[in-house]
Formats: sequence, structure tokens, C-alpha cells
Amino acid sequence: MIVKVGDYVLLIYDNRRRWLLKAEEGKKHHTHRGVVDFEDIIGKPYGTTVLSNLNHKFYVVKPTPMDLILKMQRATQIIYPKDIGLILLNTGIGPGSRVVEAGTGSGALTTILANYVKPSGRVYSYESREEFSKIARKNLEKAEVIDYVELKNKDILEGIEEENIDAVVLDMATPWLAVKLAHNALVGGGHFCSYTPTIEQAQKTVKELKNENFIDIRTQECMVRDIIVEEGKTRPETRMIAHTAYITFARKIV
Amino acid sequence: MIVKVGDYVLLIYDNRRRWLLKAEEGKKHHTHRGVVDFEDIIGKPYGTTVLSNLNHKFYVVKPTPMDLILKMQRATQIIYPKDIGLILLNTGIGPGSRVVEAGTGSGALTTILANYVKPSGRVYSYESREEFSKIARKNLEKAEVIDYVELKNKDILEGIEEENIDAVVLDMATPWLAVKLAHNALVGGGHFCSYTPTIEQAQKTVKELKNENFIDIRTQECMVRDIIVEEGKTRPETRMIAHTAYITFARKIV
Amino acid sequence: MIVKVGDYVLLIYDNRRRWLLKAEEGKKHHTHRGVVDFEDIIGKPYGTTVLSNLNHKFYVVKPTPMDLILKMQRATQIIYPKDIGLILLNTGIGPGSRVVEAGTGSGALTTILANYVKPSGRVYSYESREEFSKIARKNLEKAEVIDYVELKNKDILEGIEEENIDAVVLDMATPWLAVKLAHNALVGGGHFCSYTPTIEQAQKTVKELKNENFIDIRTQECMVRDIIVEEGKTRPETRMIAHTAYITFARKIV
Amino acid sequence: MIVKVGDYVLLIYDNRRRWLLKAEEGKKHHTHRGVVDFEDIIGKPYGTTVLSNLNHKFYVVKPTPMDLILKMQRATQIIYPKDIGLILLNTGIGPGSRVVEAGTGSGALTTILANYVKPSGRVYSYESREEFSKIARKNLEKAEVIDYVELKNKDILEGIEEENIDAVVLDMATPWLAVKLAHNALVGGGHFCSYTPTIEQAQKTVKELKNENFIDIRTQECMVRDIIVEEGKTRPETRMIAHTAYITFARKIV
Repeated sequence: MIVKVGDYVLLIYDNRRRWLLKAEEGKKHHTHRGVVDFEDIIGKPYGTTVLSNLNHKFYVVKPTPMDLILKMQRATQIIYPKDIGLILLNTGIGPGSRVVEAGTGSGALTTILANYVKPSGRVYSYESREEFSKIARKNLEKAEVIDYVELKNKDILEGIEEENIDAVVLDMATPWLAVKLAHNALVGGGHFCSYTPTIEQAQKTVKELKNENFIDIRTQECMVRDIIVEEGKTRPETRMIAHTAYITFARKIV
Repeated sequence: MIVKVGDYVLLIYDNRRRWLLKAEEGKKHHTHRGVVDFEDIIGKPYGTTVLSNLNHKFYVVKPTPMDLILKMQRATQIIYPKDIGLILLNTGIGPGSRVVEAGTGSGALTTILANYVKPSGRVYSYESREEFSKIARKNLEKAEVIDYVELKNKDILEGIEEENIDAVVLDMATPWLAVKLAHNALVGGGHFCSYTPTIEQAQKTVKELKNENFIDIRTQECMVRDIIVEEGKTRPETRMIAHTAYITFARKIV
Repeated sequence: MIVKVGDYVLLIYDNRRRWLLKAEEGKKHHTHRGVVDFEDIIGKPYGTTVLSNLNHKFYVVKPTPMDLILKMQRATQIIYPKDIGLILLNTGIGPGSRVVEAGTGSGALTTILANYVKPSGRVYSYESREEFSKIARKNLEKAEVIDYVELKNKDILEGIEEENIDAVVLDMATPWLAVKLAHNALVGGGHFCSYTPTIEQAQKTVKELKNENFIDIRTQECMVRDIIVEEGKTRPETRMIAHTAYITFARKIV
Repeated sequence: MIVKVGDYVLLIYDNRRRWLLKAEEGKKHHTHRGVVDFEDIIGKPYGTTVLSNLNHKFYVVKPTPMDLILKMQRATQIIYPKDIGLILLNTGIGPGSRVVEAGTGSGALTTILANYVKPSGRVYSYESREEFSKIARKNLEKAEVIDYVELKNKDILEGIEEENIDAVVLDMATPWLAVKLAHNALVGGGHFCSYTPTIEQAQKTVKELKNENFIDIRTQECMVRDIIVEEGKTRPETRMIAHTAYITFARKIV
């Protein structure tokens, strides 16, 4: 696969220094290790090594959806691969799924969900704050998944307009207020998921799920540790992210 | 959605007691809480509550791919949602991806990969032990993803026949021996992933990846903790799975 | 050091099979690997290997205080080394400390605290349930720390009789009800510690600490993972204890 | 208890801002929140609240040994309460224990060990680098535990001069080279402990322990997570220390 004008590429220097860039003719990317010239990138296959004018090596790869959202214009907190992965597997969201999401935020989780329901599924994403919807639209276009998303500039608490939904994913401050709405929108056996930083949010949500005919209610937290693997120096990294959110799952009973 | 004859359903009693069953006319399922009659299930919507002859409640839901693999006929160790989720997100495997996998084992990981590359992608799954291939085929048929998988009864160390592969996922004892083959099979910028219980396996794999023109080499471990969320009794479960595997990721450079 | 009649020894077969035994003349210990005769132990140095009549190796060591409490007659939940260690270091409990504890339970934590305040310090241990006090006394005698403990068959909520205490350690269901009493009993700058399985208990305790002139309030949880270290097979154990308790610390301000 | 001239006090502003200071007449401590005057501290009881000239509250408490080592003049990596606590409990080091330690470093671990073997025990601490011995001596004097420590300006690999030692604690780069020496120095059933950042160090040490008549060999890692406990906002801190060291324990067999 060849890098074409207009493609987004991930330019990698090392683990920390990496850039999401659009390939454009005449473009030059300035870094602390010299200038990378897109003349050396366009027309080359992905996976190419390119030298800056200071002779440092940079690598050009195709960004994954996760690379995209990590580099997105962000207005909200990032959601991590460990958590999104768990959400996908535990809700069964996949090709063809019809998913309701709230809130859209900058569209990070929306991007991943849209990528996995492709091509026949659909993400209906609610967001009441208009400025976020705009950022999200831009990000979804960049990720080329906008066709699988319906961005809804509405507060989900005013109602879910869709029916027979396979999964409802709530990354919002008060998911418990949307539990009843989620039950109405879901297909029988459909999946509920909320993503909440605090335990009180999880408590309120679980309580409401128990009241509203959901079963198989589970709350989990997921921790990922990076391991330095190097001869004679193998050990976990000194620091890690200790907490992102409690993730609550449930299934609707009719 | 209605339960039809021939469908696989997940019958749930509680968190531990759940069965993957094929809906068949005249079938009765015997449990310690009485007999569940499929006459009460067939033709009903998913999400239905059904009573056993002893008046206990059972719930009928559509199994997710993860439910399927947890209940599969198994000849090998289970792979957990936390790990599969991380593999999907970090490799970018999704709709349309062409993936090489080894070994197939009983087809658990294959099932999930196949479900996520649907409908246009493909999983090429290598397994040298014939008895596993048979179990895997049965499991993939049950999961209705066999059309997206090419089961190859071959040792991957004898060669990968595919080219321009998006990702190679190795759940085998000696992934380092397949690193060079993976490099040849991958598209530029393509993703390598190995899943290994021991740190020595990760060390050998990382060493080989460094020798073979891979970049962005990372090893991670993922831990999930279940939280009991109940008014006045909220706390993590007493026990958890402390370790499944070290997962190593890398990208091919040409 | 020589094993004498009347000493408690730890007889070790392997990681799981170990016994706390009193050395007595003529005593024989029956195991699944044969009979161990105390004639072969008494008068030998600690660290001796002894053979059963079936020729299996057993090891004789002096029990640590932790070995003792793990083998104690128990009426209550065990407290783990990881947690006790954190309590000692964070409260500064050590030789000479005067400590109030509640509840005594079977005396496990009391044993360790007593061992570390030796010889000039003292543990005042409250327990309202008489049957526990008896078990605790027996266990403290066995551990040879009874001289450093004052067992008080009283409910701590009826009042703490001591003053100028260095630390108050509460392993009880409702530590928040004892916060004010602890404040009165403590010396200025003295340490409060509660050990509670649920987050709600920690929440109530922290709230009360904030009301009652405590500073430096911290809640922690501690997790220990066993690592299998064996050439070519190094990896964490598959299972671990995921949760014992939330431990809350604070210092009294006058 | 009253703050006297010459005492070390811990002056606390909040969780992060705290100072270890010697009480001296006429001394003033300058902070971003104003000046604290020791005239307001000397002669007051510990636990006193003192106001800066800008009317901010500061708290005066007696430092624990852990407070001391966290504020020590440091030439080496810090050792955490979680790890020291585990070492104490698993080795049984306590009042009266005779302990060999290497290396001394800046004396942090030495301080804690000395505090817990008090008054009848002893820590023999080896350190080949003379500049560290000097820092350590100063730190041990400050902590008032120098009387319980014998600082030895020697490389432990040149030999351990003590005999019938209760525990050997190795916080050094190559503990496996000292395993045989430790065996000779230990009493029968005595405890070995090494503290090593990398898994390779643990592997080499365990291998040597197996060769040298040690039993009950265990390697552990310990993780502590801080929990924010606040009404409606309860959750673990976002970041944590993911790894400090693998701690290996064993007992000597004669």
C-alpha cells in the first residue's frame, strides 16, 4: 500500500514522539531532529523509513483507529484501548451492530465503535453541547467513519429516538438517569454499558439497572501495565495509569 | 428478534450458571433448579424470562461471540476478553482486515478475530495438530463465522503462504521462531502480536523483533478486577485472575 | 539455636503443607508423606531436615510471628502481611509504642502489633465478644507476646480508657463510630488507622476524620502478586487475592 | 509530648508540601504560604496547628521513621513502605533480631530495620562506597537509631563477618553473588531477602538459592494504590507506582 496525497499517516520517531499528519505535496514537517520532507513519503509504501535533513530516522505507518483517537483534537478525557476493548468484547458490539452512544464528546469512542460496526451497522451518538458535535464531526471525517455515525445534537436524557438497539454505551456524568431510556431503546437481551470514573456513579447506575429489568450486571476495572523487555533489564515500567473508570455491563430482559 | 429452531441461545440462571444451547423442538434442559422446556423459548423474543418446572427464573439471551468461546468445546487454554480487546485495539484489526493467526487451538481467538474482520476480511489460521482443526471447525460453524476463516492444517513455522497481511497474531509456544516469517507476510507498517504466558517467551520474541526490522515494540499485561457494587457492601471481589499472558506488539518496517 | 521441649516449630513439607507444632517428647506427627518423629527434632538446631518413616524430607524452622498467626486458631478473617506491614510503616508503630486496637478477634493482628512494640510498648486490645478474648489469649500465649498486651473484654464504643496513645488501629465493622474516641485517646500527632473491606466503611470513616481534627488522611489498598521464578517458566501466578481491605490513615491535630 | 529545641519535627501544609525540620531557637521557615516561626512551635505539644505570617495553617507532628527516610538526604533510590513492611513481616525481623544488610546506600532501609530491631537487636550494614557510608551515618544519627547499627565500609562480597544472623537483606545489584555468604552467616532457619528491580536479578538469585540449601523460596511484588475518598467523587488516583522491585524470600536449611 502506497501513501497517496490526502492520506493521514502516522510519523514515528520513538515511543513518545509521533505525529498524525496529512500527506500533502510540498509539505515539510519540522521536528527537534530535523525536517521531514513529504516528497520522501508520498508514493512510497507504508512502513517506509525516511531520513530527516539531520539524518535521523523516522517511520511512516498507516494509523490504526486507536492512533487516530490518541492524536485527535480533544475536548474531553481520552478513553484507553484497554477499556474500549473490554467494552467491545463484553457487549458483543461488532460488524452490523446498531449502537446508541452518549455523550459524543470529541468523538474518540465514537470513532472506534463506528469502525467496528462497519459496514452495515450504525452508531447513534448523542451530545447536547454543540461545540463538541463540531469537533466530533471533524474527527470522524478524518477517521473516515462518518458514514457509519449519526451525530445527534441532543441530550440523551430527553429521549432515545432509536429502537431495537443492540447496545447502549454511556460515557456521561449521570448514566443512571438514562437506564430506563436505554431499556426502552434496547432489543431483548441487548447490552447496556456505562463508563464512570467514580464508584458512586457505578453504585447509582447498578441500583437503577436492578430496578429496571436488567440482568447479568457486572462492574469491572481494567489495568494495563507496560513491561520493559530488554536483556538483563526486564521489569514493569515504574509508573502506570492506576484508574480510568469503572465499567458496568448489563443485559436487558423484556 | 425471535428465537428460532436451530438458533444457539444463552440460558442464564445466575453469574455462574449459564448454558449455551441449540433451540430444538421438544428439547428439555435439566438443571438443579428444575427443567426448562424449549416450548417456552422457541418463538419468543430474545430477552425472555422463562420459568422452570420448579418455578425458578431463567433468562434467554442471544450469545455474544465472547459467550460462545467461553462455552466452546475446549482443547486449549481460554483467552480472556481483556486480552482480546487489547489485541484488537492495538493492532487495528477490524472490518476488512486480513489476519494470519497461529495456532488455531480450539478456535476461540479465531472466532473473535473472524467476527471483527467480517464481512470483507479474512483470518488465515494455522494449526499443525489435526485434532484441533476439527474442534475449531465445529466451533467456528457454531459461531457462524466459518465463512471468514481459512483453517490451515499446517505448522506456521513451515511458512506463511499469504502476503500483504494486515496483522499476524501468534498464540503459540515459540512465537520468536515465526518473527521472520511474519515480517515477510506483513504489509509495510503491518502489525505483529504475540501472546505468551512467560516472560522468557516475551524476551525471546522482543529480541527477534529488534533484529527483524520491527518498530514500536511494546509488551503489556492486562488485569481485570470485578467489583461487587451493592449498597453498603461495595468492594472488589476477593480473588482475581492475576496473570494470563504478556502481549507483545510491533509494526513492520520495510 | 536448638529445638527444646515446649518450643513451637514450623514443620514444612512444601509451600502448602506446613504445620505449627509444639515439640513434645514421644510425639509423632502423621502426614500423607509418612510419620515425623519428634525424637529426630528435639535437640537439633533449627533449620534441620528430618526424614519421615517413608523417607520424605521435612524441614524444621522457627516460626515467625506471621507464621504463627497464619496457623492460629481462628474465629475471624485473616489479616495479610502486606496489610500489616503497611500499617506498621504508615503509623510508625514500633518498639515502645502504646497502641489501642479493636477488635481483638482471634488475636492475629494483636500478635504482630505486640511483637513490634516489644519490650517497652503495650497493646490495649478491645473486644466485646467474650469467646474471642479467650481464643486470643491462648494465641497470644502461644506467640509469647501476652506480656505486652492488655486484653480488654469491652466494646471500644463504650469508651477508650487509655490516654496519650501513639496509635489507634481499628479492625472492626464501624470504625467511624470510634473516631472521636480515638481522637481523645491519642497523643497530639498520633496515628489513626482503620481496616475496612468495603468502600462505604472507608467513606464514613474519612468523613468523620475530617470532622474531628485529623489531618493527613489517606486511604490505600495493597495488592501482592506471587511470581513463579523458574528458568524458562517465569510468570506471575495465575490467581491472586484481589482485595482484602481499604486501609485509612490519619494523624490527630490538637 | 512537647516539641523541644533540637527535636526533628514534620511540618505539614498538605499532602505534598511537608518539611522535616530541626527545632532551633530563632529559626524561621520560609514557604510559599508565608513564614513559620519556631517561637510558635517550641514548647508546644506535637499535633499543634501553627499559623504562618500570611495566616495559613501548618501542622506540627512527630515524624515516623518512614517520614524521616522519605525526607532523608538521598544518594540512592527510595524504598517504599509497602516493600519494607512486606520484608519485615515475611522475614520476621523484629525486636532483638540480628540483621545483615547490603548495601547501606543512604541508610533508608537501615533506618527502618534499626528501628524495628531496637533495643536489643542489631543491624550490620555493608557498603563499599565510602561516600554513602558518610551520608548514611548522618541520616541514622538524625533518626536516632545509630546505636543499633554497625556501619561497615566493606563490600559484602568480600565476606560477611557475622554469624548466627537472623536475617540477611540484600538491596544490591548482584544479590545472587552473596547467597552462599548469606547461607554461612545465617542461623539455621534464618531468613534471606533480596530486593531487585529486574526479573533477571530475581531469576539469578532464585537459581542460586535453590543450589545453596535454601527452602521456602518465594518472589513477590507489591502494589499500593491510593484511593480518593470524597463524597460523590470516590475513586483510585489516576496514577500509581507500577513497580519498584521483585522481593525474593527464602529460609536457610542446615
